[in-house]
Amino acid sequence: MINTILHENTLAGNAIVGQSGGPTAAINATLAGVIRGVLDEQRADGRIPHLYGMRNGVDGLLREDIIELDSVFAPDADGNYTALDTLTLTPAAALGSCRRKLPAPGAADEAEVMDKLFSILEKYNIRYFFYIGGNDSMDTVAKVSAYAEKIGYPIRVVGVPKTIDNDLVGTDHTPGFGSAAKYIAVTMQEILRDTAVYTVPAVTIVEIMGRDAGWLTASSALGRLISGQAPDLVYLPERPFSHEEFFEDVRAALDRHPNVVVAVSEGLQCADGSYVGEGTQSGAVDVFGHRYLAGTAKALELAVKDKFGCKVRSVELNLPQRCAAHLVSAQDIEESLEVGRCAVVAALSGVTREMMTIRRVSDAPYNFEVGHEDIRKIANMTRAVPDEFINGRGNNVTDECLAYLLPLIRGERYPAFDRGLPVHWIF
Amino acid sequence: MINTILHENTLAGNAIVGQSGGPTAAINATLAGVIRGVLDEQRADGRIPHLYGMRNGVDGLLREDIIELDSVFAPDADGNYTALDTLTLTPAAALGSCRRKLPAPGAADEAEVMDKLFSILEKYNIRYFFYIGGNDSMDTVAKVSAYAEKIGYPIRVVGVPKTIDNDLVGTDHTPGFGSAAKYIAVTMQEILRDTAVYTVPAVTIVEIMGRDAGWLTASSALGRLISGQAPDLVYLPERPFSHEEFFEDVRAALDRHPNVVVAVSEGLQCADGSYVGEGTQSGAVDVFGHRYLAGTAKALELAVKDKFGCKVRSVELNLPQRCAAHLVSAQDIEESLEVGRCAVVAALSGVTREMMTIRRVSDAPYNFEVGHEDIRKIANMTRAVPDEFINGRGNNVTDECLAYLLPLIRGERYPAFDRGLPVHWIF
Repeated sequence: MINTILHENTLAGNAIVGQSGGPTAAINATLAGVIRGVLDEQRADGRIPHLYGMRNGVDGLLREDIIELDSVFAPDADGNYTALDTLTLTPAAALGSCRRKLPAPGAADEAEVMDKLFSILEKYNIRYFFYIGGNDSMDTVAKVSAYAEKIGYPIRVVGVPKTIDNDLVGTDHTPGFGSAAKYIAVTMQEILRDTAVYTVPAVTIVEIMGRDAGWLTASSALGRLISGQAPDLVYLPERPFSHEEFFEDVRAALDRHPNVVVAVSEGLQCADGSYVGEGTQSGAVDVFGHRYLAGTAKALELAVKDKFGCKVRSVELNLPQRCAAHLVSAQDIEESLEVGRCAVVAALSGVTREMMTIRRVSDAPYNFEVGHEDIRKIANMTRAVPDEFINGRGNNVTDECLAYLLPLIRGERYPAFDRGLPVHWIF
Repeated sequence: MINTILHENTLAGNAIVGQSGGPTAAINATLAGVIRGVLDEQRADGRIPHLYGMRNGVDGLLREDIIELDSVFAPDADGNYTALDTLTLTPAAALGSCRRKLPAPGAADEAEVMDKLFSILEKYNIRYFFYIGGNDSMDTVAKVSAYAEKIGYPIRVVGVPKTIDNDLVGTDHTPGFGSAAKYIAVTMQEILRDTAVYTVPAVTIVEIMGRDAGWLTASSALGRLISGQAPDLVYLPERPFSHEEFFEDVRAALDRHPNVVVAVSEGLQCADGSYVGEGTQSGAVDVFGHRYLAGTAKALELAVKDKFGCKVRSVELNLPQRCAAHLVSAQDIEESLEVGRCAVVAALSGVTREMMTIRRVSDAPYNFEVGHEDIRKIANMTRAVPDEFINGRGNNVTDECLAYLLPLIRGERYPAFDRGLPVHWIF
């Protein structure tokens, strides 16, 4: 069995790491964790002579667009990892990303693409393959590891999760989510202050990322546990959206106070499966077949204006949700680094075809530990917000939901600034 | 002459302060400065027994919706101004705001409204009137001071400027602008990182606040001076917008690299006076007759998609530009506090019917001093970005412009956090 060979902990050779999928404010922290893990190994055992980075994920790998990382991020004479610290708090994917889906087993182009990929891995003597990404990236991990087994190429392939959407199964939560959740929760507090200044009735509708899962939208309500300040209404894509009930909810909220704030997920769908933002969306799909949505809040803004005639504003939080590295969760950054570092440790001990996971050990005080899970149980599955985290009416989240979310946004960590602007790492 | 009486520095009585116009991340710092100025005076001379706050500006004053402030913000036993520090970094207008325009001299309702207002001022023995706001608020300062002179009511009326738009005349810049500019400059750096991760040609259009003046949009280019990272194209409302030239500019940028980023002001107008976002706007006007704009970036997104067929995304930075108190300019907060404090000092020395101003003493190192200017030279006028700050083609700002802006975003100051969320002051 090839697995027996792989699980021996003596495999020696180079490592490569790539980033894939949508960027986050913490994905470079995970990359920094992988780099740190390899640098530590080099000083300990020296089984991984070099760490390479693929530019733009498997896209760059197939073009042999590869850079060496271990020399770039080696500690300075005083033992400080200054460059790695800068990388850690740089938003987006410093190596570049891609959305390429590798051919399915048995597809016409499978051998061509995969043989090309493995010839490049062999050329660089790659024995460790780390891929940081979301659901679609775990699909890449599954295919690379399956093909390696099929052709008998000795390599350990480990997926390192990141996604602001928090929708991967097998892990308590995903690196990157806590920082996005914190940005959303903080920004919602600020929007609540902003909308409170006038006395004329007004409805503000805030659109939050999350195509299929409402985790980020749920995070907008976190202030309820702390300052008591939260949006009046919170709608997640896990429940069918009813315009009629929505209008009733808004009317009831306007009866209570003049400044109504509503949080909506970009992926809200009506009971018939149509998207709430459909009227204002492009209808385009991305390469994975996901429909591209835009304008859920805008569509509801027009509907509320039409129904109530009051002042209505829509705010789409947009890209800053995933790239606001100036406001990250210290907890999320710590975990992102640790998951990356542990991926190297796990691969060295023989782990392959697995995704790193985070297990919540305790809530008060919050503690976590890093583990790993068979990629075949994880790839191409999504984890929705469970029923008990949403109230009966489907217009808010429960305190149980907020208690789950709260530890993930704790702590602040700020990048270095130069003359007023944050210092980012750029290759 | 009543002015002679007013300019004696012995006027004793209470003070009142109000906030008006759109909220900013620094307007509460200015309020904190006024409060601190009065608290200092109370300990020194005791000429101002009480400081009141009007809720929702002159709207609340006319309803006699007034709260006492000096007792709330008095220092604690150890001499710490903890409550005032929290107020300083709370976004939006803690006292509430309004957009009420007082009747013009000679208007049918002038006597009714103004006599009501002065009867309430008299009831509370108000001799010092501080009004924090933008252009429309300075109009209120002018009317209250003119009416006081007309009826011989001894009061000193001082305007304290704030506006993220930086469009007031008579001052080098306005409190609140630096923090909004910093938020925009930092967020632009993060968006540049985010958009750089893919290799397929894409255009990202970022819409920035500023109806008539392009100061905030100009700030999005500040990275050019520091990291060399800046949007490819920057369009301000000071120049007529040509779709034809815009398409040429975007084409040239796409020829240079795949990830084109464009910053546009919400107020862009074509040579015929039509708004670029007109097709997607409501056409409504606010009470001051300003047209309500929305969708300049969205309109350009659709135009670029139609013209080039490439991936296009629009991002409206929206409310966080003016309320992101988690990322303020330390320089701006220092000046906002100081302008508020100096308003009290000036009024005590006899100043009335004036607006506080900021003068730039030097650039390197940057230094400022606070002064004041006759309100009649300031109210209802706007200050546009000057010609020499915009390049010849009208598609970017000059280095001279960036040099003017740079000192205003310097330094970071963070609010206190409680379990992951910022602590705000709420009355």
